[in-house]
Amino acid sequence: MGNLFECLGNFFGRKNTNVRVSLPAVCFIWQIAMIVLFGIFVRYDEESDVKKWLELKESANITSNIENDFYFRYPSFQDVHVMIFVGFGFLMTFLKRYSFSGVGFNFLIAAFGLQWALLMQGWFHSLDPVTATISIGVESMINADFCCAGSLIAMGALLGKVSPVQLMIVTLFGVTLFAVEEYIILDLLHCRDAGGSMVIHAFGGYYGLAISWVLYRPKLHQSKSLNGSVYHSDMFAMIGTLFLWMFWPSFNSAITDHGDGQPRAAINTYLALASSVLTAVAISSMSQKKGKLDMVHIQNATLAGGVAMGTAAEFMITPYGSLIVGFCCGIISTFGYLFVTPFLEKTLKLQDTCGIHNLHAVPGMLGGFVGAIVAAFANEDVYGKEGLKRVFDFEGDFANRTPGTQGGFQAAGTCVAIAFGLVGGGVVGLILRFPIWGDPADDNCFDDEVYWEVPEEDEEEIIPPVLEYNNHMIHKHQDM
Amino acid sequence: MGNLFECLGNFFGRKNTNVRVSLPAVCFIWQIAMIVLFGIFVRYDEESDVKKWLELKESANITSNIENDFYFRYPSFQDVHVMIFVGFGFLMTFLKRYSFSGVGFNFLIAAFGLQWALLMQGWFHSLDPVTATISIGVESMINADFCCAGSLIAMGALLGKVSPVQLMIVTLFGVTLFAVEEYIILDLLHCRDAGGSMVIHAFGGYYGLAISWVLYRPKLHQSKSLNGSVYHSDMFAMIGTLFLWMFWPSFNSAITDHGDGQPRAAINTYLALASSVLTAVAISSMSQKKGKLDMVHIQNATLAGGVAMGTAAEFMITPYGSLIVGFCCGIISTFGYLFVTPFLEKTLKLQDTCGIHNLHAVPGMLGGFVGAIVAAFANEDVYGKEGLKRVFDFEGDFANRTPGTQGGFQAAGTCVAIAFGLVGGGVVGLILRFPIWGDPADDNCFDDEVYWEVPEEDEEEIIPPVLEYNNHMIHKHQDM
Amino acid sequence: MGNLFECLGNFFGRKNTNVRVSLPAVCFIWQIAMIVLFGIFVRYDEESDVKKWLELKESANITSNIENDFYFRYPSFQDVHVMIFVGFGFLMTFLKRYSFSGVGFNFLIAAFGLQWALLMQGWFHSLDPVTATISIGVESMINADFCCAGSLIAMGALLGKVSPVQLMIVTLFGVTLFAVEEYIILDLLHCRDAGGSMVIHAFGGYYGLAISWVLYRPKLHQSKSLNGSVYHSDMFAMIGTLFLWMFWPSFNSAITDHGDGQPRAAINTYLALASSVLTAVAISSMSQKKGKLDMVHIQNATLAGGVAMGTAAEFMITPYGSLIVGFCCGIISTFGYLFVTPFLEKTLKLQDTCGIHNLHAVPGMLGGFVGAIVAAFANEDVYGKEGLKRVFDFEGDFANRTPGTQGGFQAAGTCVAIAFGLVGGGVVGLILRFPIWGDPADDNCFDDEVYWEVPEEDEEEIIPPVLEYNNHMIHKHQDM
Repeated sequence: MGNLFECLGNFFGRKNTNVRVSLPAVCFIWQIAMIVLFGIFVRYDEESDVKKWLELKESANITSNIENDFYFRYPSFQDVHVMIFVGFGFLMTFLKRYSFSGVGFNFLIAAFGLQWALLMQGWFHSLDPVTATISIGVESMINADFCCAGSLIAMGALLGKVSPVQLMIVTLFGVTLFAVEEYIILDLLHCRDAGGSMVIHAFGGYYGLAISWVLYRPKLHQSKSLNGSVYHSDMFAMIGTLFLWMFWPSFNSAITDHGDGQPRAAINTYLALASSVLTAVAISSMSQKKGKLDMVHIQNATLAGGVAMGTAAEFMITPYGSLIVGFCCGIISTFGYLFVTPFLEKTLKLQDTCGIHNLHAVPGMLGGFVGAIVAAFANEDVYGKEGLKRVFDFEGDFANRTPGTQGGFQAAGTCVAIAFGLVGGGVVGLILRFPIWGDPADDNCFDDEVYWEVPEEDEEEIIPPVLEYNNHMIHKHQDM
Repeated sequence: MGNLFECLGNFFGRKNTNVRVSLPAVCFIWQIAMIVLFGIFVRYDEESDVKKWLELKESANITSNIENDFYFRYPSFQDVHVMIFVGFGFLMTFLKRYSFSGVGFNFLIAAFGLQWALLMQGWFHSLDPVTATISIGVESMINADFCCAGSLIAMGALLGKVSPVQLMIVTLFGVTLFAVEEYIILDLLHCRDAGGSMVIHAFGGYYGLAISWVLYRPKLHQSKSLNGSVYHSDMFAMIGTLFLWMFWPSFNSAITDHGDGQPRAAINTYLALASSVLTAVAISSMSQKKGKLDMVHIQNATLAGGVAMGTAAEFMITPYGSLIVGFCCGIISTFGYLFVTPFLEKTLKLQDTCGIHNLHAVPGMLGGFVGAIVAAFANEDVYGKEGLKRVFDFEGDFANRTPGTQGGFQAAGTCVAIAFGLVGGGVVGLILRFPIWGDPADDNCFDDEVYWEVPEEDEEEIIPPVLEYNNHMIHKHQDM
Repeated sequence: MGNLFECLGNFFGRKNTNVRVSLPAVCFIWQIAMIVLFGIFVRYDEESDVKKWLELKESANITSNIENDFYFRYPSFQDVHVMIFVGFGFLMTFLKRYSFSGVGFNFLIAAFGLQWALLMQGWFHSLDPVTATISIGVESMINADFCCAGSLIAMGALLGKVSPVQLMIVTLFGVTLFAVEEYIILDLLHCRDAGGSMVIHAFGGYYGLAISWVLYRPKLHQSKSLNGSVYHSDMFAMIGTLFLWMFWPSFNSAITDHGDGQPRAAINTYLALASSVLTAVAISSMSQKKGKLDMVHIQNATLAGGVAMGTAAEFMITPYGSLIVGFCCGIISTFGYLFVTPFLEKTLKLQDTCGIHNLHAVPGMLGGFVGAIVAAFANEDVYGKEGLKRVFDFEGDFANRTPGTQGGFQAAGTCVAIAFGLVGGGVVGLILRFPIWGDPADDNCFDDEVYWEVPEEDEEEIIPPVLEYNNHMIHKHQDM
C-alpha cells in the first residue's frame, strides 16, 4: 500500500501542488457518495414531513402549527450557521496573502462536513432500528454545524501549510471521530456538553495540534515573510471575531433544554465573553512596549470565555461564576499566544498557525473541567429536586447518579475528547504525509497563489511612471 | 415625446454623467409620491394595529400576545433583510473601483423598491374592496424585500454601466412588473413558489439580461482595465456571498406555511446549497491550469443550489433530491461562468457584469421546472390526503386540481416569469437609452469616480521620495 | 486633589501615550469589581433559574417550556447585539489609519459597559427590597446593550483623540448617568421610549459633544492628513452602516410590549429608514459638483430615520407618518454633515469626528419631540379605550393621565436627557483633562500606531527595486 502511494507520489512529483485531478475527484466522488447514502438513509423527521407532522399533531394533541420546534430552534441555528461560515471563515483571513484560502477552504470543508455529519451523527444517535433510516430536522442541522466546527478548529492549526485536498481528508476523519467520541461522551458516559467545550473544542483543538505535529515543517521559516498580517487583513479577521463573539451565547444555548436552560446558557456565555475581553486587553497591553495592543490577542483571546463555558453554561454556575471563568480564560489564552505558542514551536516542533492551542485546546479542556466541578457541586438547594434531574437528565439508566459521580464522568469525558483528538490526529497526520495530496513546499506556504487565481494588483498605475523615468534615465546613462 | 427627450438630451449633453439635478429630483419626487400614496392607501394590519389586535384577540379567542405572527415570521424577515442589503450589496463590490457603487446603489434602490413594492403588492394582493386600503404587517415586509430582489438581480447585469437614475427606473418598472407577474403566477395560475425560483430569479435574471442586451456597448473594452477585481474587493464580495449562502434557507422558508412547511424548506435549501459548493469547487478547479480555483465561481456558483430550490424547497423533494439539485446546479452555473457568459457577449452582444445568467436566470428557470416535476409526481402515499391539499393549497376554486395539472401550471408559471422578464426588460432597456439619464461613456464604466467623491489614496506617503529622487536626477540631467 | 493629579501627570510626562500601566490596571480592577458586585447582587431571574422556573411554571400555570420569554425576546437581542458590536464598531472604522481602534475600543468599552449596565440598571429598576439582589434575564441583556449604546455614541465624537483609558472612563460615567436619567425619564416621568430617541440618542449625543467641547484641541489640524478615509476603510464602515440600518427595526421593537407593539415598532422603523436613504442621497448629490455622492452621508445620514423613530415607533404614528419622519431626518442629518459640523468646529470650538451631532444628538432630540407630539394627539378613535391604556401604560399611579399630559411629559423627558448629556459630559470632560490618561498629542491623533502594534505593509516588495535603481543611479551620478 505504501509503495502504491509512493509510486503515485513520484508520478505526480513531490511537492507538486497541482490539484486539478485530486480536488475535483474528491469533491465529485464524495458528493456522489453523499447523494447515494442520503438516498438510502435520510428522511425528514416528524416536524418537517407533511404526513408525519399531521399524524403527530393528531396523536400528540398539538393544536397549532406554531408549536413546531422549528420556531424555537431555528433562530439559534442561523446564529450558529453564521459562526461556522463567517465566524470561523473570516477569523482565518488574517494572513496577508492567504485570505482567499482562509475563507474559501473553510467554506468548502464545512459544506462537505455538514453533510457527512448528518449521516455520522444520525447513525450514532437516531438510527431507526426498524426502517434503518435517519430522521433529520432543525436540531440535526445545528448538530451538523457543531460537528463541522471540530474540523474547522483543526484547520486553524494547519492554515497555510496544507492543500484543500488534505483539508477534505481532515474533515472526513474529523467528523467521523467526532461522531464516535460524541457518542461515547454524551450517550455512554452520559455527560452534559451543550456548547461542546469537550466534544468540539478540546477534541478539535488537540486533533489539529496532533496533525500539525506530525506534519512538522523544519524549513517553514522560508515562508516567514507571508506568515503575518497586513492592516486590512486584520480588519477582515475582526469580522470573524465579532460574529463568533456575538453569537456564542446562541452556540452554547442552541441545543440546551427548552425553558430555563436556554436563557441561562445564553446569559452565562454573554457574561464570560465580556469578562474575557477585559483581561485579554489587559494582558495584551501589559506585554508590549508602551502598552500597545496586539491584534492577535484581540482577535482570539477575547473568545476564550465562550469556549470555556461550553459545558458549564447550562448549569447553575451563577453570573459571577461565569465572569470568573471568562476572567481566567482571557488571561490564560493571551499568555498562551505570548509564550506557549512560541515555546511549542521551538521545543515540541509544533507549528500552530492560528494558535488554536490557546483558543480551543486549553480553554476547551479547562471548560470540561469547570463543567465537572460545577456538576460535582450541584445540589438540591440550588437546583431543587426536580431541577437537578432536569439539568443533568438523571433519568432512565442514570436515575440514581449523584452530582458527585456526574462530575467524575464529566472529567472522564474531557479526557476521552482529548485522547480522541491526539490519537486520531496522529493517524490522520500520517495519512496526510503521503506525498500525493498537493501540499505546498516550505517556501510556498501561506500563499493563495498556489491554489487560487489571484487578481493582479493595480500597482502599475502608480509605479510605471517612476519606472519609466528610471528606464529613461538608465538609457540616458547608457547613451552617455 | 421623443423630440422632447432628444432635446433634453442635447441640453444636458450626450454622456454627461452629471446627475446633480436628475438624481435628487427622482429621489425627492418619488419619495414624496410614496408618502402621499401611503397616506391614502396603507394601514397597519390587524396584528400591528393596537385597536384591531385587541379586537382580533377577542374575536379569535387568542389568549396570549405571543401568538402574534410577528414571533413566527420576524426572525426570517431579518435574515432576508440581511440578504437584500448585505448579501446582494456586498456581492456586487467585487470590482476593483466600483465597490461604493455596488453596495451604495444597491442600498438606494432597495430602499426605494421596498416602499413601492408594499404598494404594488398591496394593490394586487390585499386591497380591501370596502375601505380601498392596504394592510401591511411583517409578512408584507418579507414580500417587499423579495420584490426588490428581482430588481437587484437585474442590477447585477448592468453593474458599472448605468447611472443611479437608470437603476431607479429599473427598480420602478421592475417592482411593477414583478407585482403583475406574481399576481398572474401565484393567484391566477395558482402556482406555489415560496422562494421565488420563478417569480424572483427567473424573472429578475431575464429582466436584467434583456435590459443589458438593449444597452449593448460595443466599445466597453475601453473600460477593461477596471472590469476586474483586486484582492480585497474579492474579500468584500465574499461577505456578500456568505450571508446569501447562510441565510438562503430562511429566504426559501420565510413565507411558507407554518408547521412542517418551513423546516422542510429550510432543510432542503441547506442541503442543496452544501452540495452546490462541492461541485462549483470541482468544476472551477478542473477548468484552470494547475487546478487553481477562481473566486468568481466561489462567489457565485456556490449559491446556485439555493436559487434552484426556490420552488421545490417546500415540497417533499426528499433530502437526497435536494442534494441532486444542488449538485447539478453547481456544475451548470460554473460552466455558465466559464463558457456561456463569454459566448453570450461574443455572439449575442450581451454584456452581463455579474453573470446573473448563470446564477439567477438559468438556475431560476431550472428551479421552476424542478418544482413542476416534483409537483407533478406528488401523491397521497408520500404527502397523505390532507398533506397534498395542504402543501399545494388545493382549496376553494382549486379543490379539484390534481398534482399532474399542478405540475403543468408550475411549468407554465416559469414561462410567464421568463416572458415578463424578457419583454419588460426590452421595453425598460429602450427607455434607458434616452440620453438624459447620466450614464457613463464606454471608457468610463466600472468607475466610482463618476458618481462618488472617492478619497485619495495615501500612495504619496511612499512615492514622493522616489519621485523626488527622480526629479532631482532629471534636473541634474538637464543641468548636464 | 488637583495637585496630586498634576504631580502624577508630570511623573508620567505630558502627552505620554504609554498606557502599559493604566490600561491593564483599569481593566483588571474594574473587572474584579464587577465579579465582586455580581457575586453580591446578581442572580438569575425566574425564567433562567431552574428552581424558580419550575416554581413559576407551577404557580402561573404555564404548561410548556416554550412559553419562556426567551423565545420572544432573544432573536431581537441578537440583532441588537450585532448593532452594538459590528454596527457601531465598524461604523467607526472609516478613518484610514484608525480602524483597529475604531472597532477594537468599541469592543472593549461595550464589553465593560454591559456588565456595569446590568448592575446600574438592576439597582434602579429591579432591586429586590427583601433579598437586596438583582434578577437578570434576556430583557436585562437587551437593556444593558442599549445602555452601552449611549457611551458608544459619545465615543464617536471623541474618535481618534482620546486614549482607551479615557474611553473606559467615558463608559463608566456614561452608563451611570444613563441609568439615572433613564430612571427619571421612564419611571418618574413615566415616558415611553422603547427605542431610546431620548434616553439613548439625545443623551449619548449631547454627552459626547459636551466631552469633546471640553477637550477641544486647537492644533488638531496637525493630524489632518490622517483625519479622512481611504477606499477600503469606507467599505468597512459600510458594513457597520448596513448592520445598523437592517437591524434598527429590532432595536426599536426589542423591549416594546408583546403583541401588536413589536410588529408596529418594526414596521414604522423599517419605513422611516427607507425614506431616510432617499433624502440623504438626494441632498448628498445636490451638494456636490456633478452630483457626486459623499460616503460620509451614505454611511450616516441614512440612519437618521431609525434614530428619530426611537420614541414614536411603538405609537400609532401611521405608516406615512413614519415615512415623513424619515424624509425630514434624512435631509436634516445630511445638511448637518454639510454645514453644521464645520460651523460647530469653527465657531463653537467643537470637534466631532463622526458627526454624532447630525446622526444622534439632533435626530434623537427631534425623535423625542415627535414622540411627544404623537402622544399628545393620541385618542380613543385610533387606539381604542383599552389600546390607549395599553400603549401608554396608563395604569397604577398614572391611570388618570391624558394623552395631552403624556405629550408634555415626553417633551420634558427629552429635555432631561439633553441636560444630563450636557452637564454630565462637561464634568466627565474635565476629569478627562487630567494629564494622566495617555491621550495622544495633537499631531498624533487618528493614528493606530499610538495604541496598537500595527503590521508593516508590504510596500517594500514593490518599492525596493525602484529605490535600488535610484540609489544605483545616484551613485553613478556621484561617480560622474
